Amino acid sequence: MRFRPAMQDTAAPLGVVATGGTLDKLYFDALSAFSCGEPAAPELLKKAGADHPVGVTGVCRKDSLELTDDDRAAILTAILARPERRILVTHGTDTMPVTAGFLKGKTGDKTVVLTGAMQPALMRETDAPFNIGFAAAATALLAPGVYIAMNGRIFEAGKVRKNRDAGRFEVA
Amino acid sequence: MRFRPAMQDTAAPLGVVATGGTLDKLYFDALSAFSCGEPAAPELLKKAGADHPVGVTGVCRKDSLELTDDDRAAILTAILARPERRILVTHGTDTMPVTAGFLKGKTGDKTVVLTGAMQPALMRETDAPFNIGFAAAATALLAPGVYIAMNGRIFEAGKVRKNRDAGRFEVA
Amino acid sequence: MRFRPAMQDTAAPLGVVATGGTLDKLYFDALSAFSCGEPAAPELLKKAGADHPVGVTGVCRKDSLELTDDDRAAILTAILARPERRILVTHGTDTMPVTAGFLKGKTGDKTVVLTGAMQPALMRETDAPFNIGFAAAATALLAPGVYIAMNGRIFEAGKVRKNRDAGRFEVA
Amino acid sequence: MRFRPAMQDTAAPLGVVATGGTLDKLYFDALSAFSCGEPAAPELLKKAGADHPVGVTGVCRKDSLELTDDDRAAILTAILARPERRILVTHGTDTMPVTAGFLKGKTGDKTVVLTGAMQPALMRETDAPFNIGFAAAATALLAPGVYIAMNGRIFEAGKVRKNRDAGRFEVA
Repeated sequence: MRFRPAMQDTAAPLGVVATGGTLDKLYFDALSAFSCGEPAAPELLKKAGADHPVGVTGVCRKDSLELTDDDRAAILTAILARPERRILVTHGTDTMPVTAGFLKGKTGDKTVVLTGAMQPALMRETDAPFNIGFAAAATALLAPGVYIAMNGRIFEAGKVRKNRDAGRFEVA
Repeated sequence: MRFRPAMQDTAAPLGVVATGGTLDKLYFDALSAFSCGEPAAPELLKKAGADHPVGVTGVCRKDSLELTDDDRAAILTAILARPERRILVTHGTDTMPVTAGFLKGKTGDKTVVLTGAMQPALMRETDAPFNIGFAAAATALLAPGVYIAMNGRIFEAGKVRKNRDAGRFEVA
Repeated sequence: MRFRPAMQDTAAPLGVVATGGTLDKLYFDALSAFSCGEPAAPELLKKAGADHPVGVTGVCRKDSLELTDDDRAAILTAILARPERRILVTHGTDTMPVTAGFLKGKTGDKTVVLTGAMQPALMRETDAPFNIGFAAAATALLAPGVYIAMNGRIFEAGKVRKNRDAGRFEVA
Repeated sequence: MRFRPAMQDTAAPLGVVATGGTLDKLYFDALSAFSCGEPAAPELLKKAGADHPVGVTGVCRKDSLELTDDDRAAILTAILARPERRILVTHGTDTMPVTAGFLKGKTGDKTVVLTGAMQPALMRETDAPFNIGFAAAATALLAPGVYIAMNGRIFEAGKVRKNRDAGRFEVA
C-alpha cells in the first residue's frame, strides 16, 4: 500500500460529495418523519475549524437503501468532476459497501473515503463529527483508492460489509 | 516520510494518554468555575462505535499553561509504559506544541498524536469529537513519530505553533 | 378561573403519563427509522434538578396520529390511577387537542397539562426541555382542569388546534 | 395569594432582563476561561417557538457573586423601564436570593421571576431551557410580586436560599 506525504496533504483542498443517509437526517414535524436535509459534513468541518478549502457537491438526499444504479453513476460523475484530489463521500450506511464496490477502480488518482453515521448529526449523541474527522484524515493520509471509514476503522472497498444486527462494519 | 499499512492498523489497540485541557473541562457549579474532569476521549471513541481496544492512562487534569517539566516527563513515561504502538494524547492547546517538541525523538517506534479542543467536549458546539476522530485515524496511518492533529490538519512536532489570536494552529 | 396556592404546590409530587410522540423519538439504525423510545420527561425533570417526587406511567409509545379511542381511554385511566393531583401528559402534537378534548371534564380535581415537542428531546436543537419545564410549572399553578402547554402558551382543552403548516398551536 | 387569569396572560408580551450568570456562560479559548456572553434566554424562547412578543434588556454580564448594590439598582431600573407586565430575570444562582430580596416590594404590578442555571445553556446537559420554560410559565400565571424559579419549584422572594453544597434552592 502506498501513502501520500501527510504534511502537505492535510492542508490540501477537500471535496465533499453528499448523498444523504442517516448523517444528514432532520426531523420534519409537518411530516412526522425524518428525511435527509442539507449536507451536514461542511458544517462539521467548519465547526472543527478545519483550515483548508472545502468544496461540496450534493448528489442526492436519500436513504442508501433507495439508491439506484443511476444514483451511483451520478456519485461517480460528481467525484470525477470535483477538482480536489481527496474526496469525502457522505452516504447512508446500509449500502455503503455496495457503492464503495461500484466506485472501486474508477476514481483514478483520487483518494475517496466514504463515511456516514449510525445517529444523525443533529442528535445530541451522534457519531457524525467523529466519523467526519476520522474520514477527513483518511482522505489526506491514504493512497489513491476507495475506502470506507466507520467504527474508527478503515476498510478497503470490496472487502467490507455492514453487520446490521451488531450495528457495525466488519471485514468481509 | 514512512507510513504504516493502514488496513491492519486501524483495528489495532489504541492507547489514550489524558492530561486535561479544554477538551476535558466541566463546569462545577459549587466553584462557579470550569475545571478538568474525567478524560473525554474514551467516551467519544465509544460513542463513535470504535471497534478496537482502547486503553487509558490519566496523567493529570491541567490547563496546559500549568504543565511543568515534571508533568511532561510523566506524559512521556505514560506513553512509553502503554503497550499500544499508537497513542493519542489529549492535551490543552496553549502549550501543545511545547509538549510535542519535548516528546519528539523519545517515543521509539510509537506513533504519538496530540490533540485537544477549542471548546469543551461537553458543550453543544464543540470540535472535540471531530478532533478525536481525526487524531485517531492519524495514529493508525502515520509512521512512528510525534504529531499534532488540530484544525483538520497534521503538524509535525517542532514545526507548529498555536496562533492564539486566530484560534488555530499553523506551521512554524 | 381558579388557581392553586403556588408556594406549596410546586413542591408537590408530579405524575407523568407518557404516550409517545415526537418528544420521545429515537433513531433506530437497524430500522433506518425513528420510533418512540423510553419516556423522556422523567430524565428532563431529573436533569433540571426538579426537587419534588416524580411518578411515571407509560401508556403507549405512539405517534399521536395512531392513537385510538382505546388508547385515549387508557390515558384517562392512567391519569385517574396516579396518586398525584398534578399530571403532566406527554403526547404527540398532531392529535394533542383531540386527546385534551376527550379528557376534558373527566379528571376531577386534578390539574392535567398536555405537552410534547416539535423536535425530539434527543436532538441538539429541541423544544422538549423548555416545554416540559413550562408544562410542569402549569401543573402546579393552574386550577384543576385540562390544558395544553405548547409554544410558551397555555390553551384550554376544547379551545385549541394545531396549525400544522405554521408548526404551532393556536386558539380555536 | 392572587393569580392572574392564565388564558390571556401566557400570550402577553414577556420582558427579559439579563444579568449574566452561569446560564449565559461561554468558553473563550483565547482566555482559557468561561465568561458571560450574549443573553441565552431569548434564543431559548425562540427555539421553543414561544408565540408571544419578547423584549430584552441586558443589564450586565456578571457572575452573581460580583454583583454590587449599583448593579441591583440597575436591575430594578431595567425592570421598571420595560413595558411588559411580566418579567423574566436571568441571574447567577449564588446571589439570586439576595437580588430577589432587594427587588421585593419595589416592582409594582409586575410579576417578576428570577431564574438561572446550574450548567451553562451551551452545554449538552443543561438545566437552562427547562428553567426558562418553567420561569416563563410562572411570569404568566403568578400574581404580581417577586419570585425565584429553580429546581422545578417556585420560591417567594425573601423566603429562599441556595444550598450550595447540595446544588439546589430551598425554602429559608
